[in-house]
Amino acid sequence: MEKKTISPAVIRRLPRYYRYLGELLDQEVEGISSYELSKRMHSTASQIRQDLNNFDNFGHLGYGYNVKNLRDKIGEILGLDQSRNLIVIGAGHLGQAIANYAQFERMGFTLTGLFDINPDLAGKEVRGIPILMLDDLDRFALEHRVDIAALTIPKSAAQSVARRLTGLGVPAIWNFAHVDLEVGEKTVVENVHLSDSLMELSYNLMSRSRDSK
Amino acid sequence: MEKKTISPAVIRRLPRYYRYLGELLDQEVEGISSYELSKRMHSTASQIRQDLNNFDNFGHLGYGYNVKNLRDKIGEILGLDQSRNLIVIGAGHLGQAIANYAQFERMGFTLTGLFDINPDLAGKEVRGIPILMLDDLDRFALEHRVDIAALTIPKSAAQSVARRLTGLGVPAIWNFAHVDLEVGEKTVVENVHLSDSLMELSYNLMSRSRDSK
Repeated sequence: MEKKTISPAVIRRLPRYYRYLGELLDQEVEGISSYELSKRMHSTASQIRQDLNNFDNFGHLGYGYNVKNLRDKIGEILGLDQSRNLIVIGAGHLGQAIANYAQFERMGFTLTGLFDINPDLAGKEVRGIPILMLDDLDRFALEHRVDIAALTIPKSAAQSVARRLTGLGVPAIWNFAHVDLEVGEKTVVENVHLSDSLMELSYNLMSRSRDSK
Repeated sequence: MEKKTISPAVIRRLPRYYRYLGELLDQEVEGISSYELSKRMHSTASQIRQDLNNFDNFGHLGYGYNVKNLRDKIGEILGLDQSRNLIVIGAGHLGQAIANYAQFERMGFTLTGLFDINPDLAGKEVRGIPILMLDDLDRFALEHRVDIAALTIPKSAAQSVARRLTGLGVPAIWNFAHVDLEVGEKTVVENVHLSDSLMELSYNLMSRSRDSK
């Protein structure tokens, strides 16, 4: 595949396209114009054309985009055509919520392991996957390919577990701990900082109520 | 307070400043220069000065910023000096994870209600808050001030519950459902789309491995 530099802003919008196109498919819509799509997505048609022109083969046909082709293509760009093994470290409520998302499986992410340090959880199953103890992580990672590790553990433990994961060659960390991990450049990290999101909501709530005074 | 237009990019960075300053406070650091802060945050000193110059009273003193004052000020800008009542709709794993974050409480967000439609959960308590049935929502919202409702329910139910919440005058929705809600302009919505985040991770994982070939 040819290497292209696509702006992170465009990449961040692709999952949303993927989601809307999936909804259109569910509604059995076969083709859609950039204008119709822009109305649904509260975007502009020119933004959509501009975004999708970053990639090959998205040519705007007479009647618009072929929904299935476009969605498949975006899925391919996002790597969703490949199957990825996902482990979850931290089997508390958040870890179990992630382990239970059937949707992720449909996107190609298969839950293959679930770890905790609480011995009361040892051997309990979530969707048929037994909870292992964190001590078993090294052995597990040697025996199974792990593509992504979701970290749903407290901030205090996250950094050391992240280092351990990179040492084991796990290429990607989906980090829910309230800390920015220090890992090498070779490791891909995607953060979900719930507190940051709540603070942003708080700011918007405050400025909204100030504006309406 | 004087109205100023601050770019959304700056606002999005403020929670991260707040977090790092909190860590410095925990380490009993009293003052910090923009240079030292930039090293910790993997940012640049000029970026930090530029961001913080958007607000009053962040004057860069001789020895740097006073950590506590700066953190308090950012907290104030983010509205964290005000107490907010938070309800959670959907008492599954994700809802219970959110209900259990003690950290949110420290930031001024108090869990006051937890709702579900599963009768098996009725009356169970999470941190002393009994789970109510969704049918009780209207009565609850009339009797208690609700500032923020976290929606941790399936996509299929999210839109109708969001409409009901806006009808009840709830000003802000923290949406975890995999859908963009259609609500009036008066309602503040902050989305946490976990699937989108996982797709972004997938993209980065793929482009990283492509680059290393």
